Amino acid sequence: MTDLRELAVQAKEAARVLAGASEERKNRALENISDALLRHQDEILAANRADCDAARADGMSDAMLDRLTLTGARLERMAAAVRKVRDLPDPVGEVMEERVLENGLQLSKVRVPLGVVGIIYESRPNVTVDAAVLCLKSGNAAFLRGGSESIRSNIALERVMREALAQSGLPQNAVTLVHDTSRETASQMMQLRGLIDVLIPRGGAGLIAAVVRSASVPVIETGTGNCHVYVHEKADLRMAVDIIVNAKAQRVSVCNAAETLLVDEAVADNFLPMAQKALSASGVALRGCERTRAILEGAAPADDDDWAREYLDYILAVRVVQGLDEAISHIARYSTGHSECIVTQDAEAAARFLREIDAAAVYHNASTRFTDGEEFGMGAEIGISTQKMHARGPMGLRELCSYKYIVRGSGQIRL
Amino acid sequence: MTDLRELAVQAKEAARVLAGASEERKNRALENISDALLRHQDEILAANRADCDAARADGMSDAMLDRLTLTGARLERMAAAVRKVRDLPDPVGEVMEERVLENGLQLSKVRVPLGVVGIIYESRPNVTVDAAVLCLKSGNAAFLRGGSESIRSNIALERVMREALAQSGLPQNAVTLVHDTSRETASQMMQLRGLIDVLIPRGGAGLIAAVVRSASVPVIETGTGNCHVYVHEKADLRMAVDIIVNAKAQRVSVCNAAETLLVDEAVADNFLPMAQKALSASGVALRGCERTRAILEGAAPADDDDWAREYLDYILAVRVVQGLDEAISHIARYSTGHSECIVTQDAEAAARFLREIDAAAVYHNASTRFTDGEEFGMGAEIGISTQKMHARGPMGLRELCSYKYIVRGSGQIRL
Repeated sequence: MTDLRELAVQAKEAARVLAGASEERKNRALENISDALLRHQDEILAANRADCDAARADGMSDAMLDRLTLTGARLERMAAAVRKVRDLPDPVGEVMEERVLENGLQLSKVRVPLGVVGIIYESRPNVTVDAAVLCLKSGNAAFLRGGSESIRSNIALERVMREALAQSGLPQNAVTLVHDTSRETASQMMQLRGLIDVLIPRGGAGLIAAVVRSASVPVIETGTGNCHVYVHEKADLRMAVDIIVNAKAQRVSVCNAAETLLVDEAVADNFLPMAQKALSASGVALRGCERTRAILEGAAPADDDDWAREYLDYILAVRVVQGLDEAISHIARYSTGHSECIVTQDAEAAARFLREIDAAAVYHNASTRFTDGEEFGMGAEIGISTQKMHARGPMGLRELCSYKYIVRGSGQIRL
Repeated sequence: MTDLRELAVQAKEAARVLAGASEERKNRALENISDALLRHQDEILAANRADCDAARADGMSDAMLDRLTLTGARLERMAAAVRKVRDLPDPVGEVMEERVLENGLQLSKVRVPLGVVGIIYESRPNVTVDAAVLCLKSGNAAFLRGGSESIRSNIALERVMREALAQSGLPQNAVTLVHDTSRETASQMMQLRGLIDVLIPRGGAGLIAAVVRSASVPVIETGTGNCHVYVHEKADLRMAVDIIVNAKAQRVSVCNAAETLLVDEAVADNFLPMAQKALSASGVALRGCERTRAILEGAAPADDDDWAREYLDYILAVRVVQGLDEAISHIARYSTGHSECIVTQDAEAAARFLREIDAAAVYHNASTRFTDGEEFGMGAEIGISTQKMHARGPMGLRELCSYKYIVRGSGQIRL
């Protein structure tokens, strides 16, 4: 077996070639990958069936099995998504700023790839393709380490994508899957500073925390969303009901779903019964503070752990607050810095909330579910950053890039 | 003594206030700091004398002592630099992008401070003020940990700055110096993830490597510069002499000074004697490869260690290369990704060099000494990033910021 460091060295070499590849060549590779996913459908689905059978025998939950499973229809959607990435503008070489200095030096700030992007993720074979093609389009080599339950599927997908790269005249090592899915290999990967330029963990909070704790490679934290919807006393209450139902229940398993509802005491008596009715019609159970439970019969009690939890389920924590100050403090304390919303018709309260809440996306009168690369117009995303360094919120192709300064002179020296 | 974590919690609270502070208030604070540095000159200089006396007794080198020493003139320059930062545009609140989505949502990407910026540095009291005021102007709390030899000076400077903050109606904890300069405290500081948003080590390569290895807080690597000047066969040789002399000798102790000269074999016979003459007139000694030494008598031999070394001294490594390919490979292998220069009249060779070399700043026909916040028009810098994440090259006020997405709606939900 090839040693991990050697794999990373090869990926770095591939990244150097890829950084200089033309948009046409990268697009052709993406097209070839899209075609190959469909052409090799039988082989990919057979590998995936073997993964699913083994996982089922091991007692994997239905929800996890669903994420692991590929079908013809899912492969078609993956292939279509690859073509969508092909159609996005190439970020590499974009001139971000340009000026002539007083001494005549021409200074340009130009977007360049990051280099080798490491991705550590769980057993979701679609991430293998998603991540690889976003890296490819942005000129980065993808260094992938997926969950062990999806290893057969991932190896099949890797083989198909590498073949397509070679056909397109690009280095195969631009897409590298780590076949050894042991914990030791993951830990080793986190220490490959200088070879891997950035590490993006995709998965549950536990995985992300483990990577952050251990890695010497720079990490981008993504996807932990303890998101709040705050209903201010001057909210349009019908709008507030629509927003909380959508933010909570439109898709419960995603990071931009709401987990806690905060309600001003002035409107709690009116609002909470309306909200409860609509939420329970969507299958959502409530866990409330004492004041919530005094208004809503049947709400289970919420404690401190509930305020901090990302349920990713049909459960919503509810807390009555005195007003804007308490809402902001609650969010400052429990937010993971993902997406936070205020519902109000009061412009001043909205302005203060939008200014003071420290999160990737802050909303006034709209569902938190919009925090998404596609919704924001980026076309696709590799994750949603909840940190402040490098990139924040949805990370698209540009966020997978760095920049460099190009300085053109005619013999200038510093005086 | 206050516990380090508690200090960081207080800094984080101060950062929240500072993030919402108006430009006027921040500017007033900067003015007050500038005034106070001069008004409290005696107190600061007395503290600094005590530091210098102790350091001298401990056998500190002259170069280090010079960096530690404050004088009336130096304090005046520091005060003037603070006023220059006051005059820079406030980056906070800048709208970086804005658009209305199809569903009517108004999306703005707005610059916000990073939060708490931790700085670990050596015994240079000027960094205490520089870093504090750059953080202040960019809305960040500064959490400073300087070298032990400068602790008395730093405490005096901290007191003066905190007083000025209080006078200006800003929280004193926006500038926090860690008084305990033990290694344990520095290590502890590197683990304050969630309280310190970013850590910027300023100092030698050893300090930076130690921080990178140990920190769980995100780090920005700065200031290690093994910079190259490459003289291509089609260079204007007189221009090349001026550039290498300036890049090497204009100031040898800085990170953007050149450390290795690469010369095409086609022009080595002509160029090297010219370069040697000019360089030795500036006091620079050469260490050459075998081919260099065949041309230049008196050059000491260079080995692999020399190619990798950042001398920060009147020493230059010299290597004869076959041409552009070998120059690019040499730089790819030994560069720290800071500043790299090609001297040539050939547009194609220049274009390839500028494209393929992976560094913060790539130069054609100009000295590497221009990689500097002030020279690049940023006004001031907190360091020069040699990593690709977040910011690359000189880091000014904007680079001390993150951003957030502000989304204004009228009840939009996701379908």
